Amino acid sequence: MDKELVLGIDIGGTYTKIGLVDALGNIFQTKQFATEAKQPYTTFLGRLKTEINALKSGLQSNHQLLGIGVGAPNANTHTGAMENPPNFKWGNTIPVAHSLKELFGLPIIIANDANAAAVGELEFGMGKGMKNFVVLTLGTGLGSGIISDGALVLGQNGMAGEIGHVNVNSSLNARQCNCGLLGCLETYVSVTGMRRTIFELIAEMRDDSPLRSISFEAMTGEIISEAALQNDAIALKAFEYTAEILGIQMADTAAHFDPEAFILLGGLSKAGDILVRPTIESMENHLFVAYKNKVKVLISDGPGEHTVLGPAALAWRMFTGKSKEPHMV
Amino acid sequence: MDKELVLGIDIGGTYTKIGLVDALGNIFQTKQFATEAKQPYTTFLGRLKTEINALKSGLQSNHQLLGIGVGAPNANTHTGAMENPPNFKWGNTIPVAHSLKELFGLPIIIANDANAAAVGELEFGMGKGMKNFVVLTLGTGLGSGIISDGALVLGQNGMAGEIGHVNVNSSLNARQCNCGLLGCLETYVSVTGMRRTIFELIAEMRDDSPLRSISFEAMTGEIISEAALQNDAIALKAFEYTAEILGIQMADTAAHFDPEAFILLGGLSKAGDILVRPTIESMENHLFVAYKNKVKVLISDGPGEHTVLGPAALAWRMFTGKSKEPHMV
Repeated sequence: MDKELVLGIDIGGTYTKIGLVDALGNIFQTKQFATEAKQPYTTFLGRLKTEINALKSGLQSNHQLLGIGVGAPNANTHTGAMENPPNFKWGNTIPVAHSLKELFGLPIIIANDANAAAVGELEFGMGKGMKNFVVLTLGTGLGSGIISDGALVLGQNGMAGEIGHVNVNSSLNARQCNCGLLGCLETYVSVTGMRRTIFELIAEMRDDSPLRSISFEAMTGEIISEAALQNDAIALKAFEYTAEILGIQMADTAAHFDPEAFILLGGLSKAGDILVRPTIESMENHLFVAYKNKVKVLISDGPGEHTVLGPAALAWRMFTGKSKEPHMV
Repeated sequence: MDKELVLGIDIGGTYTKIGLVDALGNIFQTKQFATEAKQPYTTFLGRLKTEINALKSGLQSNHQLLGIGVGAPNANTHTGAMENPPNFKWGNTIPVAHSLKELFGLPIIIANDANAAAVGELEFGMGKGMKNFVVLTLGTGLGSGIISDGALVLGQNGMAGEIGHVNVNSSLNARQCNCGLLGCLETYVSVTGMRRTIFELIAEMRDDSPLRSISFEAMTGEIISEAALQNDAIALKAFEYTAEILGIQMADTAAHFDPEAFILLGGLSKAGDILVRPTIESMENHLFVAYKNKVKVLISDGPGEHTVLGPAALAWRMFTGKSKEPHMV
């Protein structure tokens, strides 16, 4: 019998990952290469074509490639383009779906990376069997993808799920966000946000800490997590502060969707209980009575690690009749 | 030809309205009576039965009654019951859908009042032709109903759309909400919220104002609006303050859904430009770049005035194949 596969592509600011994935979420072949986002888009496209063709040449005669799913920063499912992605020097509107269509002639679907991750959790991950949940990717920034009634929420312009840019501090001295606003959630709840918090706390507190000898640029999420595990007072307070804000926002998001669960992905989620326990406490303290003790908080063990699964899941939904997400080209 | 109708029932804390409505949203007959929410549920049910039968007796021989839609405080579409509605002495779980099914043997659907209003706007109101919008009812409290991809967002437990209970002030001296939380949106953005703001401003400001001679209990939304129209400094500042908070929340809600519009209903929306102009300004100031200048803010001219249209629209969607909202009984 023919074995049907789709190609998942995860375009990141640093690395691009591609992989062949079957309907059950098994990854057959995978490859990673440098995105080189500061080089022209055509350079990237040439490299992508070469890598995909190499992957395809490994297919056996009974393998059939059905379509391609793409997850990328600021990608718009409606237009098929990446729109003004920060850190990419590829222009304002990058027609990724159309480029791939031209190269390979297969059905293509594209979504913003966090939205793709949410669909990955829905099809192959911790959201399997759930109809209503919210994925939060806690990395350099804070991305989100919302599954409502079993489908990805896309919104009017294909740009739904930007919870990282809700306002959590409306005072004039709130933190400046890359997006141009002040006080966005991701300026507090993300690896970058935690670095900022650590530096505020270093200025504010008197406790000795190894963190005092590390520069802002050198301060990684791993260093902060490690310090917290060693009971560093500043790191612990930073997690507490971050969890308080994240928990309030999760309660607010729940008041919109009444979700079954939040699924956390990304670097910060690896901190585990140090982050999750106080986050749940804060969320429960702020949840509207109808939702109290009903909303699960889960840490993904799946597609976060295998980032081609989200894009592949998007592609699979084009062929299984489950998708309300239109494929564009 | 037979004329098909549905019955819409709007159960309010003070009045209950019932009406026969055709597929185009024309109201054929309507009746209003006192809910008497402090009397037993069985008393209400007896009165409702009498009033519905009176309305039905006015039907002509070619009229056909297809089903019943109900909007009520804290009503859960999944369970068919009103759950812990404040101000009702009818018990904790009031099985409205099942009661009506027993009495009339027709298909029944029930939804919380703001959710029903959103479906009313979708079918018969300003949301006609839209697929993504959010209804905010600014009355005694703040209710909300969310339409995403052409369907009402119900959530995991049938309780989605409680935007009135997102947190807008996490400080310890934030306003106390009826729901038991502190700092809920509706403690600021609602008629009751504006009364609280007016009293804070009376305490804070030195300006002469007719509002200083009115008690908290006697301070209505109309009095505040009237004062603002007369350029009363305290009333104007209260609208500004309220609009600032409302606009920030609308930006935050937009970051979840990417909606085409917000549709405002209820007493406070009647203030018109005094509220809406600064609300739009605040929303635009806080919108994530992808949504700027794309989200409309509309004041309903429709179902808000004819509150049986929302419940009737819910009922109609059971028969037009458009509904993803299940009917329960």
